[in-house]
Amino acid sequence: MAMTEELRWLYKPVPAPDQIARDAAIARQKQLIKPEGALGRLESIAVDFAGFQGKEQPQLDRLCVRVFGADHGIAAQGTSRFPQAVTSVMLKLFCEGGAAINVLSREQNADFAAINLGCVVPTEHPDLIDEVVASSTADFSQGNTAMTRDQLALALNAGRRQSTDTDCFIGGDMGIGNTTSAAAIFAALFDLEVSKITGRGTGIGDVVLTRKMALIESALEMHRERLGSPLAILQTFGGFEIAALTGAFIASVQRQVPVLVDGFMATAAAAIAGTLNPSVKPWLLYAHLSDEAGHKLALECMEVKPMLSFNMRLGEGTGAVLAISIIRQAINLHNKMLTFSEAGLPIAD
Amino acid sequence: MAMTEELRWLYKPVPAPDQIARDAAIARQKQLIKPEGALGRLESIAVDFAGFQGKEQPQLDRLCVRVFGADHGIAAQGTSRFPQAVTSVMLKLFCEGGAAINVLSREQNADFAAINLGCVVPTEHPDLIDEVVASSTADFSQGNTAMTRDQLALALNAGRRQSTDTDCFIGGDMGIGNTTSAAAIFAALFDLEVSKITGRGTGIGDVVLTRKMALIESALEMHRERLGSPLAILQTFGGFEIAALTGAFIASVQRQVPVLVDGFMATAAAAIAGTLNPSVKPWLLYAHLSDEAGHKLALECMEVKPMLSFNMRLGEGTGAVLAISIIRQAINLHNKMLTFSEAGLPIAD
Repeated sequence: MAMTEELRWLYKPVPAPDQIARDAAIARQKQLIKPEGALGRLESIAVDFAGFQGKEQPQLDRLCVRVFGADHGIAAQGTSRFPQAVTSVMLKLFCEGGAAINVLSREQNADFAAINLGCVVPTEHPDLIDEVVASSTADFSQGNTAMTRDQLALALNAGRRQSTDTDCFIGGDMGIGNTTSAAAIFAALFDLEVSKITGRGTGIGDVVLTRKMALIESALEMHRERLGSPLAILQTFGGFEIAALTGAFIASVQRQVPVLVDGFMATAAAAIAGTLNPSVKPWLLYAHLSDEAGHKLALECMEVKPMLSFNMRLGEGTGAVLAISIIRQAINLHNKMLTFSEAGLPIAD
Repeated sequence: MAMTEELRWLYKPVPAPDQIARDAAIARQKQLIKPEGALGRLESIAVDFAGFQGKEQPQLDRLCVRVFGADHGIAAQGTSRFPQAVTSVMLKLFCEGGAAINVLSREQNADFAAINLGCVVPTEHPDLIDEVVASSTADFSQGNTAMTRDQLALALNAGRRQSTDTDCFIGGDMGIGNTTSAAAIFAALFDLEVSKITGRGTGIGDVVLTRKMALIESALEMHRERLGSPLAILQTFGGFEIAALTGAFIASVQRQVPVLVDGFMATAAAAIAGTLNPSVKPWLLYAHLSDEAGHKLALECMEVKPMLSFNMRLGEGTGAVLAISIIRQAINLHNKMLTFSEAGLPIAD
């Protein structure tokens, strides 16, 4: 796919996290009153944030959580346990504050909003951000790509508009049928066996799982000539919310805002983002290992290690917001533990 | 070892967590607006607390954190990177608020205190709880048991006095040399190969590790006739702080207070507690997988699954207090998410 002018921003490189601040943070960790390395991965998380913020003692005060919702044409093939109407119901619920992501976001004092990229059942709420591209993507199992090129650009740019100056960005997803899109994206991007990357989504049984795999297999074959670039893969399999996440992740990192990536769909967006613009990769952290069967393999392909593993498979950004409390504690320890000299002690050899 | 009157309380059985409240909580989870099971282990954590508190919607407001410190005679064999003086220095630091456990406990609004069971270098602080048994255990590699029977009883009862009515109890440890005691306890209790349960503690090199293993191996042989009961194993290998943890865990559970078990030493205490009084086991949750090499094997022997894995190996109770934020979020989700009917929707089939 030729790069259009309106998508040129996606490729703009991002500087690496600040190595001087990282080194200062590493040196600080060695001064803290504990055996070197005894806080394990909490130490490296604090060092990562030092690098993101360019200072030895970082902070995670401001948190931005955005949930992107959209419907999927592929859902017509019956790959989900739930009807498509659920997508718009959940978008409204996000605005009313009763969903899991709301409970978690409130607890973390996050700046929260939901964005509608297009649902089969129209939905409105004063707090719902309207970025409707279309009522649904096209069914990619029927020959067309999920999105037109214009729709792809609209969705990527809608995500871009949600990036903001904050200490950490989290993007969540809502879209009945979207594990089918994400599995197809991973299969195309990393050349994976469909049976290894495809999972049960909201909880489908064996019969539907077999059909879901066959659909993806046949779509990969059908669209083979088209899948030459990350954006082409995204256009082919959708959905609008995964494209919006991709745009939001790249635009956030271009502001030097780190992204805490949630589960299967957010990881698909991160995979697209990191493949088309590798300079964003050091700014992406991975919150949790989802219970969705293919997530482990996807993370392995990307050579990244998730922080938590609680068998969650809800989406919405829930696993990422859950992990924020851990990151905040890692940063607190880094900033507030005494050093050996503050405690009046010689440093351990 | 005959059961003495003053330790009879250890064996008093505890009722199982409330099954009616657990069932009500499980039913509530099915009503929450998400696919069934989509919050994974967060759901079962909330259900566990419902059972502990005997109510469908539990709370985790009050948290009690106690760190028990003591010196170990076995440290004379040079099995640690640090001098024994560090134990008392750290106990003082816990009272002054500058250690990792203080930073984490403050963040979680915990009721925190440190208890001195006996250090080689005497230490005093107005806030340090004095339960000194002796300046150190005996060196169990030299023929004697680490503790006399009277000392064992003193340490267990000191732990008992720290149990209190709270929503969750966490016990931490501080004691140079104590991974050697804990490894010997696990080896004796579960009949494990010493090389598989013994780790690097504060970070010893290969030479010291080999010596540490040989010491434990020879001590197991030397004391073989004595190791017929969990209390005898505890008396033989120590230390005072592991005995105090054992007493605190059992006494907490006897108040129907759940215990969140920290890393290698706390798990050794939990293993002793659960073996001598199996009725406490359902009340013990396991916070994290320590980086100490033998911890994974010990948890497998106990058939329990830790919540977090951050390669921590600091002790003090740090891994457990870190996990409290996750438990609090699990309970929040359980209590505050809308149900399908509250959202005006039919429940998913």
